Amino acid sequence: MKDIRPWKVLSSRTEFRNQHSLEVCVQSVKLPDGQIVDDYYQIRTPDAAIVVAQTVEKTILAVRSYIHGARKVAISLPGGNIQVGETPIATARRELLEETGHVAESWQHLGSFIRHANQGAGWDHLFYATGATHLNEPASGDLEEMELLFLSWREILESLHSGVMVTSSHAIAVCMASLRNT
Amino acid sequence: MKDIRPWKVLSSRTEFRNQHSLEVCVQSVKLPDGQIVDDYYQIRTPDAAIVVAQTVEKTILAVRSYIHGARKVAISLPGGNIQVGETPIATARRELLEETGHVAESWQHLGSFIRHANQGAGWDHLFYATGATHLNEPASGDLEEMELLFLSWREILESLHSGVMVTSSHAIAVCMASLRNT
Repeated sequence: MKDIRPWKVLSSRTEFRNQHSLEVCVQSVKLPDGQIVDDYYQIRTPDAAIVVAQTVEKTILAVRSYIHGARKVAISLPGGNIQVGETPIATARRELLEETGHVAESWQHLGSFIRHANQGAGWDHLFYATGATHLNEPASGDLEEMELLFLSWREILESLHSGVMVTSSHAIAVCMASLRNT
Repeated sequence: MKDIRPWKVLSSRTEFRNQHSLEVCVQSVKLPDGQIVDDYYQIRTPDAAIVVAQTVEKTILAVRSYIHGARKVAISLPGGNIQVGETPIATARRELLEETGHVAESWQHLGSFIRHANQGAGWDHLFYATGATHLNEPASGDLEEMELLFLSWREILESLHSGVMVTSSHAIAVCMASLRNT
């Protein structure tokens, strides 16, 4: 394998920050060949946890809601931003309960993925939970109108191909859980 | 199905913009229940095209390089930002040629996915190209040191599970192409 070396961050300056933990930094980075790039920017937004939850009846818990980032009504998975001091799996358990009213028996970490290869923009931590059962009514506190759906594997995979599931991290979670399920 | 309604953007104000087409806007949005949220922010970065390219020998073209957004050396697919006036598939063809020196015979659109459900942050358009053959030497002009790899389906799927492929859009492209290939 070729020797591929990381870049060195020489300096970082915050150019924008708001009260929702969005931050834009401009970095001066030194490449392995000695070249210096003095305007390489990074985006920081909160990391999130997302869960593919399969009920004891082998259906997948999905949420139909308006996704403002994509400007469309779409199908998503339970999930949300990791709060300060929270572990990714604790976020996944909390969001599953808040958004669907379900708890799950068995949890696997599917992987963690960055939203933008160059600019970063935060990590999504993906989980696969099985043996999910209903505990109480959902109470997400989210802004969106939501409809809870119980989909078959075939239906949720079809939603990827038909453009009804539009968020990258949710799509990869469904695919990776599906690969473990088969 | 429950009636889920889109939000209405009442106003949008640019709070940050740089020379790399990164823009942060703050919107005032009206929810279907009449509630107004006056600090919902959107991130704009260039859309990109990404390609899973299978050679005539049935190997997948991958690139090993340093991914600064994730701060690690990782495996990626050919791809990059869509330039002004370019269609997503034209970007995919250009990036495949620039980064790997290959052209492909047959092209399918796998889907298009948004990087952040709430904040947007740009779309990734994913393609599956088959019958790829070598035309000339790569000449990407990218900053990164790169190693071109020819991976089996098993190897590239394994890179998802082992954390060696770390970018969401690349991972979903591999999964969706793999689902079409089987």
